Amino acid sequence: MEKEKIILDVDTGSDDAIAIVCALLSEELEVLGITTVGGNVELKNTTDNTLRVVECCGKGGEVGVYMGSELPLVSTLVPWGIQGLTLPRKEERFNEKVRVHPQHLPLPETKLQPEEKRAANWLVEKLLSMPDHSVTLVPVGPQTNISLAIRTDDRILKKIKRVVMMGGSHDHYAPTQGAEFNVWCDPEAVEIVLTSGLDVTMVSLDATSHAVLNREQAEAIRAIGTAPAKLVADMIEQRLTASEKVLKGAPGQVVGAALHDPLAVCAVTHPEVLKDVRFTSCHVDLGRGYAYGETVLGRNYYGREDENGVVVSLPANCHYAASADAGFFYHWLYDLLAKAKK
Amino acid sequence: MEKEKIILDVDTGSDDAIAIVCALLSEELEVLGITTVGGNVELKNTTDNTLRVVECCGKGGEVGVYMGSELPLVSTLVPWGIQGLTLPRKEERFNEKVRVHPQHLPLPETKLQPEEKRAANWLVEKLLSMPDHSVTLVPVGPQTNISLAIRTDDRILKKIKRVVMMGGSHDHYAPTQGAEFNVWCDPEAVEIVLTSGLDVTMVSLDATSHAVLNREQAEAIRAIGTAPAKLVADMIEQRLTASEKVLKGAPGQVVGAALHDPLAVCAVTHPEVLKDVRFTSCHVDLGRGYAYGETVLGRNYYGREDENGVVVSLPANCHYAASADAGFFYHWLYDLLAKAKK
Amino acid sequence: MEKEKIILDVDTGSDDAIAIVCALLSEELEVLGITTVGGNVELKNTTDNTLRVVECCGKGGEVGVYMGSELPLVSTLVPWGIQGLTLPRKEERFNEKVRVHPQHLPLPETKLQPEEKRAANWLVEKLLSMPDHSVTLVPVGPQTNISLAIRTDDRILKKIKRVVMMGGSHDHYAPTQGAEFNVWCDPEAVEIVLTSGLDVTMVSLDATSHAVLNREQAEAIRAIGTAPAKLVADMIEQRLTASEKVLKGAPGQVVGAALHDPLAVCAVTHPEVLKDVRFTSCHVDLGRGYAYGETVLGRNYYGREDENGVVVSLPANCHYAASADAGFFYHWLYDLLAKAKK
Amino acid sequence: MEKEKIILDVDTGSDDAIAIVCALLSEELEVLGITTVGGNVELKNTTDNTLRVVECCGKGGEVGVYMGSELPLVSTLVPWGIQGLTLPRKEERFNEKVRVHPQHLPLPETKLQPEEKRAANWLVEKLLSMPDHSVTLVPVGPQTNISLAIRTDDRILKKIKRVVMMGGSHDHYAPTQGAEFNVWCDPEAVEIVLTSGLDVTMVSLDATSHAVLNREQAEAIRAIGTAPAKLVADMIEQRLTASEKVLKGAPGQVVGAALHDPLAVCAVTHPEVLKDVRFTSCHVDLGRGYAYGETVLGRNYYGREDENGVVVSLPANCHYAASADAGFFYHWLYDLLAKAKK
Repeated sequence: MEKEKIILDVDTGSDDAIAIVCALLSEELEVLGITTVGGNVELKNTTDNTLRVVECCGKGGEVGVYMGSELPLVSTLVPWGIQGLTLPRKEERFNEKVRVHPQHLPLPETKLQPEEKRAANWLVEKLLSMPDHSVTLVPVGPQTNISLAIRTDDRILKKIKRVVMMGGSHDHYAPTQGAEFNVWCDPEAVEIVLTSGLDVTMVSLDATSHAVLNREQAEAIRAIGTAPAKLVADMIEQRLTASEKVLKGAPGQVVGAALHDPLAVCAVTHPEVLKDVRFTSCHVDLGRGYAYGETVLGRNYYGREDENGVVVSLPANCHYAASADAGFFYHWLYDLLAKAKK
Repeated sequence: MEKEKIILDVDTGSDDAIAIVCALLSEELEVLGITTVGGNVELKNTTDNTLRVVECCGKGGEVGVYMGSELPLVSTLVPWGIQGLTLPRKEERFNEKVRVHPQHLPLPETKLQPEEKRAANWLVEKLLSMPDHSVTLVPVGPQTNISLAIRTDDRILKKIKRVVMMGGSHDHYAPTQGAEFNVWCDPEAVEIVLTSGLDVTMVSLDATSHAVLNREQAEAIRAIGTAPAKLVADMIEQRLTASEKVLKGAPGQVVGAALHDPLAVCAVTHPEVLKDVRFTSCHVDLGRGYAYGETVLGRNYYGREDENGVVVSLPANCHYAASADAGFFYHWLYDLLAKAKK
Repeated sequence: MEKEKIILDVDTGSDDAIAIVCALLSEELEVLGITTVGGNVELKNTTDNTLRVVECCGKGGEVGVYMGSELPLVSTLVPWGIQGLTLPRKEERFNEKVRVHPQHLPLPETKLQPEEKRAANWLVEKLLSMPDHSVTLVPVGPQTNISLAIRTDDRILKKIKRVVMMGGSHDHYAPTQGAEFNVWCDPEAVEIVLTSGLDVTMVSLDATSHAVLNREQAEAIRAIGTAPAKLVADMIEQRLTASEKVLKGAPGQVVGAALHDPLAVCAVTHPEVLKDVRFTSCHVDLGRGYAYGETVLGRNYYGREDENGVVVSLPANCHYAASADAGFFYHWLYDLLAKAKK
Repeated sequence: MEKEKIILDVDTGSDDAIAIVCALLSEELEVLGITTVGGNVELKNTTDNTLRVVECCGKGGEVGVYMGSELPLVSTLVPWGIQGLTLPRKEERFNEKVRVHPQHLPLPETKLQPEEKRAANWLVEKLLSMPDHSVTLVPVGPQTNISLAIRTDDRILKKIKRVVMMGGSHDHYAPTQGAEFNVWCDPEAVEIVLTSGLDVTMVSLDATSHAVLNREQAEAIRAIGTAPAKLVADMIEQRLTASEKVLKGAPGQVVGAALHDPLAVCAVTHPEVLKDVRFTSCHVDLGRGYAYGETVLGRNYYGREDENGVVVSLPANCHYAASADAGFFYHWLYDLLAKAKK
């Protein structure tokens, strides 16, 4: 069976780390390269963390890591600096008190270096060299790199088979009152992807909030005994601790470690892990109000008429997953790590 | 028992008509006056329709009707007219094909006239004449009038006991992909109310979408035999027909006639009709993107720290009702109409 | 000769004080009332200062003062508070270091009180009582009150002869990089006036920056010897000092005390004081970027075609004055004060 | 003397054509390559027109042409499509009635082809291969390509000596009531350049509107007799005709053909052609109001305090040229074309 060719786009990040492990160890995937972007931590750290994970998986030298954009496309270009204010992004993103992601993953330092080319340039070059419809993009951080590549050279669009992204939300959101983190970091970038005509599957925060793991599961994974399994177990436990702190007593919150990014990797090879998937209109609010960066979903029944006079919504452009099968996800993760041991 | 003093603010409109009937016939409410606003139909029609309903209930001369604002505060002040485009509001709101609200209600013409004073002026004058915390505002249309009154004379704030409004949404929305109609018509007005410090209960489209009636219930109401009961039955059946046309085959839609506005009246005297009510942060997106006019709800667990270092959300400013008890609502409506017969 | 009936709308404010003096002492004007608004200083101070000026002119009891809106229509309703930021307006407006306007004018305390009614309510009531096209509005601060009145009761529009306003700019601006203060304080309010169909003359900051007075002229005015003349002289000298501090060394700045608001009063009775007046399209930018609150002027030669295929601009809606005759203005001011002595 | 190395970024376009001719024929410039972007006409036409001009100058095979972005970064991502409206850009930009730029320049078809790499990719690759501070960028169209390159790989910033751009305005503007065409096409792109820390000279529409040529000058240039001189003469005359049509009777308009883009090329080697140049704060309004895409200039005297308590503006980031020496410009253009004949 031919492996599915993917490019991972990450802001590693504790759950990104697990996503990378899963992608590199999966027998069904061929990782063409990994691109990094600033997000959970700063770009230099996301890049360094990514290299550590690649080494941990024994893939140093096999899979290139390409450093991406430090800044989002345009979302930091706001004028309130006129009055001496700075954007709240930095404090908020890198605030110690609510930090979920360590600046450095608990892995040995690595001598691996990122490739010379930067992410968007490499994306264009690599994609142009591939057959049509042959590559699946798996962005699990802000989508600055992919949007830059699309605007730079639209010939890449036909090379891309589909996009399976982690990001977006309807019922769960943070850090603002309307937006999920990855989309909020670069709202315009995601809207570029959503309006590109590409086949997009959105593994939303609503979905990943259902795919939670507990301490028993973390221990079972740790017992596999490999370095990747230990890293995954560490990350799950670190997330459990951070989430318990943030969410303590919050009504309606599922208790456990939500592994947002690996769920997107799982969804590439095992789409059945996603539940409540609907093909719908989905756009990002770019209006700089309370909902800036929110993914606004269509209901498919109102606002526009089709040729038969039926009132419909904007055209569907996104497979939005609102839930997930936590048990399936855990078993997939365990099996993948256990199998890789051999 | 002292009656609760209310002021109704309406854009009549078929469900507004039922709300007016309920408020005028309720033994627990004293309607100080009714203010009108453009919304479901144009201002002249919402005013005329309101007068017809008042007459139908035999309250002509008892309860004054005050004509309000034709235009929203600022939401029509957009510049795209530069390029020859006009705002889509008019077509959309008064589009024949999706019309839910008849321009003229199926009631006899009336000789009743609106009062000389316009709505916002009267609101200020009336409220200033009342004891502190004595009046409940019940806006079930765009909130232009109330926001004008608040900005004109903030001494009215302490006269208002609370606001029980119909509007807003999280899971249900129309006419845009993110906003409920009443809020969308004048988003800035609602944000003025939400930031005024008033005690606001939001009977959302999510709540009213659960409070649906069917044809059997319409017939039972019709059998009461009074003019108001006949009007209510007509309105329910007209809404059933329109909704079936718009929603036919739409997945996840509750079949039946949602009576949005009367649910707010019911909630004034019988708050137990509301279900899934939470006290939360709620703000209106004013950013003119896809979510313009959307009510953005807080989750109360993220984004800001309280004095104990617990991460919390923006301050709660709204009792948001996300569901309703349809059976309770029907019986309340039936009993109110039947009792008024005697 | 019949006097021109005006209503002054002020945020007193040192130059507002002179404007009030001029309006009250002019033999050609009948001041129907004065409305106040927050702006140069807070509302309670603009109201108190206004009352002191009325008393200084010996008009206590003759001319009513109506307190207006503390807050602008909607320009403070921004969401960045989500991240703990507050709007920069207060600091900026009331910053001691750049304060041009004293909180209290150097006039004796007064026992005069504002009228019971608030400004927008009184504007509606008064205007409705007047003949059509009989009243000239002279707003020289933020236009919250007038915009509230227009939205509350559009029957007032036909009562208004014209609006002669101080505000707007193209070449001169402060406090932001694009906007003049009065418009910036409530941009949406001015756009409501500009799109109301009223006949608007905009005495811009470009115009008033040419109508400057010097110390010699202040001394000549002081020598008139009346209380109003002394107040005017004090205000001019206070502005000279403040302006010298702010503008020292600034290239292209005319040295002297610009008396923004009284120029609008002068323009009511002596339009020839305005120079470089063109009838043009003028709209306020409401986009919340760097130009938020900027008055954007048309060039009348591009963008839209008239019936003859000639490319034209948006329809003209404003008489924009870009310059003024400083000598004429000084002599008008001096004569008015000197004549009032007798 | 070492030639100044430049990269031209064009949307050819009649005045772009002259800019290319000037750059290619100048003995003081070495053109490293030419990148194209959609703007005056569509991307395929700007690219084809550029290739024709290169061939006309006999530089086919010497100077590479790199096709850039069809779409602006984000300015077309607006949601009003919800209501069935499309952005007015296309009609406006390519409207036959006001067309200044022919789709195809009056030059023979060419077999020259654009290079394989797209513009932003090539910009990164080429700049990284150059010494630090060695390349002058001369964008005379929308700046999508350059902004993409900056976001893709910020290591290019130190390779760039400076940016001499045509675009922006204060007193002259089109197609909207506040914005100059090049900036309006991609406002966010220009703000990325202005906030990049690069040394930017803005040859504004105010400046180029002074650098006009007349029919006599066009004839003198035609008499030089070379193919490039004939092309330049044709373009001047075509612009004279179009401008006369658009501007007929417009007050305050300088009669003649403004050659916007070549003035930027002239300014690279002969900065003395620019007049009224000031080093100032300059930012692009991104707020989607009337001023969207406007370049908002600082006054350097207000809004922020320096270390001595002097109130100043935002930091200066741009050398803004507001005027130009038309006579100097003509003689430079004539001499360059005449000299190239030999």
